[in-house]
Amino acid sequence: MQLTTTQQEFLLQTIRSIKDFPQPGINFRDITTLLSNKEAFTLLINHLKSYYQSYEIDYIAGIESRGFIFGAALAYALNVGFIPIRKKGKLPYTTISEKYSLEYGFNEIEIHIDAFKNEILNHIPKVLLIDDLLATGGTAYAAANLIKKAGANCIEACFIIHLKDLKGEENLQNLYPIYNVLSL
Amino acid sequence: MQLTTTQQEFLLQTIRSIKDFPQPGINFRDITTLLSNKEAFTLLINHLKSYYQSYEIDYIAGIESRGFIFGAALAYALNVGFIPIRKKGKLPYTTISEKYSLEYGFNEIEIHIDAFKNEILNHIPKVLLIDDLLATGGTAYAAANLIKKAGANCIEACFIIHLKDLKGEENLQNLYPIYNVLSL
Repeated sequence: MQLTTTQQEFLLQTIRSIKDFPQPGINFRDITTLLSNKEAFTLLINHLKSYYQSYEIDYIAGIESRGFIFGAALAYALNVGFIPIRKKGKLPYTTISEKYSLEYGFNEIEIHIDAFKNEILNHIPKVLLIDDLLATGGTAYAAANLIKKAGANCIEACFIIHLKDLKGEENLQNLYPIYNVLSL
Repeated sequence: MQLTTTQQEFLLQTIRSIKDFPQPGINFRDITTLLSNKEAFTLLINHLKSYYQSYEIDYIAGIESRGFIFGAALAYALNVGFIPIRKKGKLPYTTISEKYSLEYGFNEIEIHIDAFKNEILNHIPKVLLIDDLLATGGTAYAAANLIKKAGANCIEACFIIHLKDLKGEENLQNLYPIYNVLSL
């Protein structure tokens, strides 16, 4: 079930815009003001819990760092495991790694090679990918590759905020379905 | 209520040890194997929910990045706001910042100056600080200073794993009560 227009408007007004961060010309969407608002944070996670309840997800994979916040809360809400996708050099065990281009710069992300080991002997694990923001989609594209290389199936990607002008949906089409909670 | 010995042992056996990460001589405690185990992750957050239910906490502050995972899930479970304490340069609005020494090196963390603005006009907000690991306590000491400077009261710090040999509890004594879920 989708959020009502009133719920969407409530969540949108809790998000702060910061001009010229982290670089001149970028209008940064600050979700810390949503997180600190308990009504907004609870509404958002309750909504995602009910939205994904029937998907039979095995794992939620969250992208460092803001994807950890939404992903871990939702993993707890759905009673599934949480898999961190981290910046290069942060995961301590053997990793698979992917490079990607950001809205502003380049980066590299990693997943543990045995991230899905608890389920992978029984079936191909169903993974929901989550991040705070869909901009150009570069990070999410790389993350889907990591999930596939680690032996699981990324069945959908969920973004709290979709920046429509940046064509992220086009870059991710045919990869997996996308659910954008809010669009700006 | 404390965890039973059996529950503690179950959680401990889901934590992986990685020798010589990130530097030679460090025996790194890898909590990704706890997070990916849905029984372990759910048990841990349910326990913390019941442990902190009566504290009347206003906010949970989590330290980047692994503190985000436990902190956000617990904030959702307790229906309170979540405040990210981040590495320098990551928070987009005006920040307060503190330097601290790590087990291996130095770092600087920040909090938004208005992090607690939703509650601060009514009373001094009660904040639970959470991180995955208590080592020397340097990060947690700096984080408590940040919470105080932003106008709130850090009523307790919660660590999933306490490394007893590193004397973190001594360095944090008289600052706030500490709850270590697991000790190694």
